[in-house]
Amino acid sequence: MTANKFDIKLLAMDVDGVLTDGVITVHADGSESKNFHVHDGAWLRIWRRLGRQTAIITGRECPAVECRARDLSIDYYYSKALIKKEVLNQLIEQSGIDPVQIAFIGDDVFDLPVIRRVGYSAAVADANPEVRQAADYLTSLPGGRGAVAEFIQHLLRKMNLWDQAMERYRQ
Amino acid sequence: MTANKFDIKLLAMDVDGVLTDGVITVHADGSESKNFHVHDGAWLRIWRRLGRQTAIITGRECPAVECRARDLSIDYYYSKALIKKEVLNQLIEQSGIDPVQIAFIGDDVFDLPVIRRVGYSAAVADANPEVRQAADYLTSLPGGRGAVAEFIQHLLRKMNLWDQAMERYRQ
Amino acid sequence: MTANKFDIKLLAMDVDGVLTDGVITVHADGSESKNFHVHDGAWLRIWRRLGRQTAIITGRECPAVECRARDLSIDYYYSKALIKKEVLNQLIEQSGIDPVQIAFIGDDVFDLPVIRRVGYSAAVADANPEVRQAADYLTSLPGGRGAVAEFIQHLLRKMNLWDQAMERYRQ
Amino acid sequence: MTANKFDIKLLAMDVDGVLTDGVITVHADGSESKNFHVHDGAWLRIWRRLGRQTAIITGRECPAVECRARDLSIDYYYSKALIKKEVLNQLIEQSGIDPVQIAFIGDDVFDLPVIRRVGYSAAVADANPEVRQAADYLTSLPGGRGAVAEFIQHLLRKMNLWDQAMERYRQ
Repeated sequence: MTANKFDIKLLAMDVDGVLTDGVITVHADGSESKNFHVHDGAWLRIWRRLGRQTAIITGRECPAVECRARDLSIDYYYSKALIKKEVLNQLIEQSGIDPVQIAFIGDDVFDLPVIRRVGYSAAVADANPEVRQAADYLTSLPGGRGAVAEFIQHLLRKMNLWDQAMERYRQ
Repeated sequence: MTANKFDIKLLAMDVDGVLTDGVITVHADGSESKNFHVHDGAWLRIWRRLGRQTAIITGRECPAVECRARDLSIDYYYSKALIKKEVLNQLIEQSGIDPVQIAFIGDDVFDLPVIRRVGYSAAVADANPEVRQAADYLTSLPGGRGAVAEFIQHLLRKMNLWDQAMERYRQ
Repeated sequence: MTANKFDIKLLAMDVDGVLTDGVITVHADGSESKNFHVHDGAWLRIWRRLGRQTAIITGRECPAVECRARDLSIDYYYSKALIKKEVLNQLIEQSGIDPVQIAFIGDDVFDLPVIRRVGYSAAVADANPEVRQAADYLTSLPGGRGAVAEFIQHLLRKMNLWDQAMERYRQ
Repeated sequence: MTANKFDIKLLAMDVDGVLTDGVITVHADGSESKNFHVHDGAWLRIWRRLGRQTAIITGRECPAVECRARDLSIDYYYSKALIKKEVLNQLIEQSGIDPVQIAFIGDDVFDLPVIRRVGYSAAVADANPEVRQAADYLTSLPGGRGAVAEFIQHLLRKMNLWDQAMERYRQ
């Protein structure tokens, strides 16, 4: 493997506005629900089947997100990550993965320090304008509508893994 | 009846992203809710009143979907259908219906093997591009917004059953 | 009052897809939630303050809708109204109001017999094409996004009650 | 500080249709849920970190909104505010802030008296046409999709506080 080969080993993701549509549904008892999308879950499973890892970096703390992260078998989970750059450093240390082999997808200005540091980054269609400009790739779908699934498909094509991923659905 | 006559006896449907908008709302206790549409339910009832059958083929397992399927009196219900082509074979055997008389509506690449095998297929407006290209019919509505109702209306017109279906609402 | 004067005394409404966005959210325990809009509630209160009445005609039976109807102080509530024309006849008898002084707003083909009978009718922006064509007025907003509020404002202007309705918000 | 300097010390907000998308989700037990947006919460925190205050003025009374207000550390909370101008007078008295240093964001005609009185006002993208015309600023985002976050960013730039707000996310 040469240094030039595009080979993302870990996909890190913001949650609110990326894996969700940014909506926080508040109930009469004060509990919160969040809206995830089935396509993101399906493609995260394909991503993992190809031996790749996943991480969640969220500024908030939320039981609903923890439940979803468990359901998706996320490898690294960081909540209350107010200064996301510090958390990224933790992730790099814990995973032992070179930042150039980490991809990240975000939506708000708080994600900018992470976007600038990782090897490849994406902004969702409805991200903050500064984030859209800073990211390497812009999804056509907004957060919570399959933007992560779209980014994974983009990464798989860029890494020439598309045919391998599709194999079992082709026949 | 000749082999050329267009006569769909069973409508099979994917759930997430087709009968729902793809959103999985996760609550603080980890339970999940899904968004169905009233028009789909109303037209599935008309479809059944005309002596036609229905099937659900879903890759996931979800109490909310089981509840909705019961409410809609779905004839055949398959969950955890990760390899959907195998489940289609089961459906063909159990129902005794010729695949050419089965219609299917889906949205993601996992549905491709089913779309290629049934007599007539549809993709929802916000389906994966590969699925949109493979399907016989493309609904103008996205999943969970009445796409199934739209497909049923299309089938009824194509089968010359429209006037019979509308009869009781015409006077 | 002459027979020609436009004077709507009662506004009858379909629920799913009109007062709601058509979404039926199904939870893990099988219970259902529906999405109403704050603008509809606010303008229904103004409508009632001007001495006008309201009715709900719904084909389904749903605890969430009953709760909302109570909250909105709806005058006449009919559920499980599968043949809506019959229910309209009941409403005319019970309210003693001439059908020409009843307005109705609907969205699906099941509403057609009612739309054809009342004095003035509206279809929501995302109504079935046949309904859009049959109605006197087409709202710019889809169901559950304030379409009823928009129709009420239209009725108030058409009845020259706009200034009276706005009086307390003008100063 | 001269009288001409644009210096907003308090941001007052309507809730339904502004901090939420206007949807009132009604459950089978009659309880209500509302949809807030993560971006609004994030920017309200930045707003407060810059020493500015916040107020909520809502015509309804709702446990879910009280929960969200507590989570956002809102300084002044007024519910059941049917005549909003009277509540604005209360807010001015209690906070001791000159109305010219108060900003307000609303969506419906009930907000008009407040919009006309404060120093600077905004209407969300999907506000009532009369409100859109009366307001000083029109957000590009609809209510509940980050319109408050957008208005705060606009205020920060107009008050030359943008760089200070962004400082910790720039490195």
